[in-house]
Amino acid sequence: MSRSIDPWGTVKIKDYDRLIEVFGIQPFRDIKLLLARRGLPISLHMRRGIIFGHRDFDKFLEAVSRGERAAVLTGFMPSGKFHLGHKLTVDQLIYYQRELGVKVFVALADAEAYAVRRIPRKQAIRVAVEEYVASMIALGLDPEKTEFYFQTNRGTPYYRLIQLASGKVTQSEFEAIYGDITPAKVVSALTQAADILHVELDEYGGYRWVVVPIGADQDPHMRLTRDLAERLSQEISLNKPSATYHKLIRGLDGGKMSSSRPDYTIFLTDPLDVARKKLMAALTGGRATAEEQRRLGGVPEACTVYDLYLFGLVQSDEELARIYEECRSGKLLCGKCKRYAWTLLEEFLRRVQERLPEARETAWRIVDAPRF
Amino acid sequence: MSRSIDPWGTVKIKDYDRLIEVFGIQPFRDIKLLLARRGLPISLHMRRGIIFGHRDFDKFLEAVSRGERAAVLTGFMPSGKFHLGHKLTVDQLIYYQRELGVKVFVALADAEAYAVRRIPRKQAIRVAVEEYVASMIALGLDPEKTEFYFQTNRGTPYYRLIQLASGKVTQSEFEAIYGDITPAKVVSALTQAADILHVELDEYGGYRWVVVPIGADQDPHMRLTRDLAERLSQEISLNKPSATYHKLIRGLDGGKMSSSRPDYTIFLTDPLDVARKKLMAALTGGRATAEEQRRLGGVPEACTVYDLYLFGLVQSDEELARIYEECRSGKLLCGKCKRYAWTLLEEFLRRVQERLPEARETAWRIVDAPRF
Repeated sequence: MSRSIDPWGTVKIKDYDRLIEVFGIQPFRDIKLLLARRGLPISLHMRRGIIFGHRDFDKFLEAVSRGERAAVLTGFMPSGKFHLGHKLTVDQLIYYQRELGVKVFVALADAEAYAVRRIPRKQAIRVAVEEYVASMIALGLDPEKTEFYFQTNRGTPYYRLIQLASGKVTQSEFEAIYGDITPAKVVSALTQAADILHVELDEYGGYRWVVVPIGADQDPHMRLTRDLAERLSQEISLNKPSATYHKLIRGLDGGKMSSSRPDYTIFLTDPLDVARKKLMAALTGGRATAEEQRRLGGVPEACTVYDLYLFGLVQSDEELARIYEECRSGKLLCGKCKRYAWTLLEEFLRRVQERLPEARETAWRIVDAPRF
Repeated sequence: MSRSIDPWGTVKIKDYDRLIEVFGIQPFRDIKLLLARRGLPISLHMRRGIIFGHRDFDKFLEAVSRGERAAVLTGFMPSGKFHLGHKLTVDQLIYYQRELGVKVFVALADAEAYAVRRIPRKQAIRVAVEEYVASMIALGLDPEKTEFYFQTNRGTPYYRLIQLASGKVTQSEFEAIYGDITPAKVVSALTQAADILHVELDEYGGYRWVVVPIGADQDPHMRLTRDLAERLSQEISLNKPSATYHKLIRGLDGGKMSSSRPDYTIFLTDPLDVARKKLMAALTGGRATAEEQRRLGGVPEACTVYDLYLFGLVQSDEELARIYEECRSGKLLCGKCKRYAWTLLEEFLRRVQERLPEARETAWRIVDAPRF
């Protein structure tokens, strides 16, 4: 992929080649052909190369084409606040729900929040419902077609998977993935595996084809979960879950977008003036002077505002390509570009924030919160 | 306790003093006074010093006296066959059930059997029901008043305890108790803690006073479980469980009585001729010759046949004391003694084995076996 002429190729994956060659993640390009061949719609993140790899996603899509029971699953740690990094995953869920008619499951990782992150129970439960579930609904996920659940409230067959899986992973395998091996991490990791695998059980609908959209950093866990599916086969017939791998949106300083870095992270609940200030201070691919930029052009690959466009703030591919070219040619300078970005971001935030109060009520109504 | 004149003091506990002094296990003698004072019956194993220590058993008994909800809980690993070592625990359950009117819970440790011992699921489930539950019923535990359950079939609040407790024990605490820390051991240990603690939850009857009859070797786990009850108090109000500590019956060679040592272990299902042979070959406290034995007397403390009497084959304390004296005085020689022991053991085995077929049917009827 030639960086200089690819408007989608701005976010680079560290060790991308290694993921493909060593760990067996498949490149996503063949999937696009498969989708086209099957007449299935392709999502914005697929088109733009944000989703760059997969495991067995072809098998998942073939099953969807055959009309078999299929599900997409993700999990959220109920800590901090919902931001644009989380939105990337929710956008994918919405694609599966609306475009492919696939069942959506969302795990609320309150067990892990308590045991590993030491977040008080009441706080984790409130944050899970009001911050995460409500935001997903406000973003457009259909609450009637989505199964949100708390890890501590999921029923016996789910927990049985945790118990049985505990005998199918060795201490050294575990240490290779997680570094050390505390009781809290052991239970959390096995719980995550159960999150992915349990929807295949008849008790939870028997969704025998599952896909999990993740970042590349989560692949070691995905490999373990796929191995567990195979190792448990003597007792339980489980398909290996599929995965897609996406690049991560950067924070506004070019670092990580994260709740712990609020100055560089756009939260859905940011007051508009706060969000505007963050955006105006964002790191761009601009040059030292306007004169220089007109002469040399900007570098969208280095620009966190361009990241916002790329990940969905600009929906039209044509418009995105135009912005890319105008930046590179030196025609579009950063000040003007940021003001334009703000008009889009402001509209987006305003619309979502209008929906949030009702979405919170819906969230409390549909989610079964644990008693302790 | 002077060994030479105590017919109950034959089985010595290694590090007994250390348990009492270092780890805070309380001697059982004060409990006998308490029972007498409250007009509560005392069991054979209590009278004979087989139960030698406790933690907070006085609090448990006070609660029973006040008529509060109280339960006794034990667990069995569904591997191997039911033998006289297991009977010791069941006799205690029967005492609680009949004499104190205390609710009985029995955990069938199928999760641990699978994950740690690698016993196939179907085998573990069958052994749990046909070998363990059935034997307990045949021994006289009332199936209508006992809650037998599989660890893999216990419902959400039970598992929630496992998840929450995982955050309340450190890696080094765990290693100090269990040596190393594999995923299987972590989950099994936390599951055992949930076994003990979950009956306090309202969902399982709210038995706020729990006693667990155990061998001294299980005390480290009991300490951890009591600590967990305290550490979880921010989220869940749990009383620290009580424990009683019993001596273990020896195998017929003076070593451990265990399924893995069938030549020295009396199983409930032993054919009578097999049981008789084992008994006749048992290690006794006899002297090299009959002449010497008549002169010096036998040593009941060293005799595994005397162990059988002590642990319940002889019910009358007077008779037990008489046998003890006749052995020590050289009046009762080993051949005659073994023949007498066999008349008692044969009657016991015959009676239990007659009951086993119906007990097995009852067992399958009342136990909710996991689906996978």
